[in-house]
Amino acid sequence: MKIGGTFDVRESARRLERDIQELSRFSGPGPGVTRLSFTPEYRSALGYLEEEFGGIGFETYYDPVGNFVASNVPVGERCVALGSHVDSVPNGGRFDGTAGVLCALEVARLMPDASLKVFSFVEEEGSRFGRGILGSRCAVGSVSEEDLRGYRDPDGVSFYDAAKEAGHEPARVADCTANLDGVERYVEVHIEQGRVLEEGGQEVGVVEAIAGLVHGTLEVEGSADHAGATPMDLRSDSGLTAAEIVVELERLVRGAGKTAVGTVGRVELHPGALNVIPGRAEVGLDVRDVKESRVDEILDGIVAFARGRAEERGQQITYREHLRTAPVGMSREVVAALEDACGRTGVSCRKMVSGAGHDAMMVARRVPAGMLFVPSREGISHSLEEFTEPLHLARAVTVLLEAV
Amino acid sequence: MKIGGTFDVRESARRLERDIQELSRFSGPGPGVTRLSFTPEYRSALGYLEEEFGGIGFETYYDPVGNFVASNVPVGERCVALGSHVDSVPNGGRFDGTAGVLCALEVARLMPDASLKVFSFVEEEGSRFGRGILGSRCAVGSVSEEDLRGYRDPDGVSFYDAAKEAGHEPARVADCTANLDGVERYVEVHIEQGRVLEEGGQEVGVVEAIAGLVHGTLEVEGSADHAGATPMDLRSDSGLTAAEIVVELERLVRGAGKTAVGTVGRVELHPGALNVIPGRAEVGLDVRDVKESRVDEILDGIVAFARGRAEERGQQITYREHLRTAPVGMSREVVAALEDACGRTGVSCRKMVSGAGHDAMMVARRVPAGMLFVPSREGISHSLEEFTEPLHLARAVTVLLEAV
Repeated sequence: MKIGGTFDVRESARRLERDIQELSRFSGPGPGVTRLSFTPEYRSALGYLEEEFGGIGFETYYDPVGNFVASNVPVGERCVALGSHVDSVPNGGRFDGTAGVLCALEVARLMPDASLKVFSFVEEEGSRFGRGILGSRCAVGSVSEEDLRGYRDPDGVSFYDAAKEAGHEPARVADCTANLDGVERYVEVHIEQGRVLEEGGQEVGVVEAIAGLVHGTLEVEGSADHAGATPMDLRSDSGLTAAEIVVELERLVRGAGKTAVGTVGRVELHPGALNVIPGRAEVGLDVRDVKESRVDEILDGIVAFARGRAEERGQQITYREHLRTAPVGMSREVVAALEDACGRTGVSCRKMVSGAGHDAMMVARRVPAGMLFVPSREGISHSLEEFTEPLHLARAVTVLLEAV
Repeated sequence: MKIGGTFDVRESARRLERDIQELSRFSGPGPGVTRLSFTPEYRSALGYLEEEFGGIGFETYYDPVGNFVASNVPVGERCVALGSHVDSVPNGGRFDGTAGVLCALEVARLMPDASLKVFSFVEEEGSRFGRGILGSRCAVGSVSEEDLRGYRDPDGVSFYDAAKEAGHEPARVADCTANLDGVERYVEVHIEQGRVLEEGGQEVGVVEAIAGLVHGTLEVEGSADHAGATPMDLRSDSGLTAAEIVVELERLVRGAGKTAVGTVGRVELHPGALNVIPGRAEVGLDVRDVKESRVDEILDGIVAFARGRAEERGQQITYREHLRTAPVGMSREVVAALEDACGRTGVSCRKMVSGAGHDAMMVARRVPAGMLFVPSREGISHSLEEFTEPLHLARAVTVLLEAV
């Protein structure tokens, strides 16, 4: 097999399909893939990677928090890094994270002479310890030992203790950064988790930026009255204000530009009975954009709107922000290199924004980083219905081979 | 003490206050009054009524399903009937239902020579067996023995068995109608459960009609996508359609006239996660009016609106109706008599519509019936905060004394 434009993409697709299939077997019970950090199934999945990388002469090891590393160069030496994660959400799919690690494995198989390092970061999903993108966060030095002792799973087991039990040395979390020393570029392949590529018919997406996001809740406090005995003029219906917020958020977001998204995924009406006018309503907000100032403009707009409507009805508005992450731009140089590689290999591509967070947003703090998206069938992710054509994975490998 | 305009209304208010207080003690554990049909606390409350009525020479007995009757005339003889119910919702208030039965008791105390019959209907709230306004439904012959065997409490005990266990003869449900033989008029005092009287400053309300209602659910089926990875143009957000339905329902109802009310008390978004666009939404509808055709016009309008919005988003709409009750007009003659009595006794009143269902709507099928509403503080009901001024109850008694 040859490197570059002439390798057999179908053969590569078949290997990737087999890898995906093999890794999907390492799962807890229930539908889909359930593979939480440090569980037996998680360790078995990494065991598979150890064997595959070992078979092509790569050294494999773990950093102090349990990030998996496979490399054909010593720590600190110049190399290109690829990677993603193999932990999953409960009852998730076979491709989220895994696709990126396995594309990296395939690149390593096909370019044994390139200086490569492959990461499989621990606890990207945050499904076990409640804090996502954690392993890569450690890799850039943003997590303390105390933090690791504080992140706990539903049984009260801390990340610290679980990592230690798995044979790692979480007390040395500060040393995790050593593995990015000498890394000149980082590229992560990931399923898109949306329908942009599928709708556009492109084989890969070159990510220009990962959107920042804010999660918040608007709470409306009105008056819970009898649905039959309270004429329309005597109501202070919190559900109505909540509904207007949902409609207005969409209007504001659409007006803010193509990269902005805003979602109300959760609305709670209290007491929640068919025949009681809602006295209290909670509206969950998820607003994202590649410009943080635009996220704030949207949020300011929706809170002001809510206050205005509430005032007319004699209601109180409380706004709470739960989570904020800043947007992260990908390296222009890496983006250009990936685009060029697409052009040279004849892989159709488009530049796009990632609305979801990924390990690359952490790694980008220390290393020029980029991402390649592959199409997700119907945009479905975090579900056993998640699917990406093996050929699309192989196309991403083609681009990586060319770019590396 | 004298009959008519000169009796001591404050003395009457004090007695009513004591009665309310005494009856409120018969309750299951927890805040407020919990008094479900046939429970020990329910039987004790009726025991209190037996004693009070017995003390003024009334005969007390139960019909075959357990409706309590106190009368000073033999069954079948001409009389005026008053009444309501003493069962409650879980953790309800001290006045709902009870107020009507105790006002009737007070009238009986003050008019020992009038031919009177007082009902306390069983299972008005439907809180134990899931079917409201049940005792009065039996009293007008609309319930079969089979029905009674089918209505079950959460433990699986049927109304039939519970009634039998309490010493009644539910197999003879058809004989319940005998107690309305000879009854020439029925008047029920009830707390308003709204804020119309409080806002208007009237002491009582004369009910002209009990609104009919429809309970239904509109289900919107769109597409659950990743909130970050799905641009606004690629969404089929069910929550947005649900929100528009809430806003549009209010517009339609306000346009339909003063007596119409429409409420969305329950909205469920699925999967209900902050970062997932709702794929499915359920919107609970409660629409009421004194004209059934107007209820249907509103429902037709909101379903058509929902289908239109859904079509634009490639969504499916399913509408299900759960419950429908027809509006019931009160007897014009009884309404006029109550209004006249208010005028003659100097009790301020207004004519109004009942948005909630009451035993009077069943009794009205056989007997010219009317209702008097008394103000509910802040419109609160079905809560331990439920409160009506004893003086307002005494004003209702004043009107009844005059009207009877």
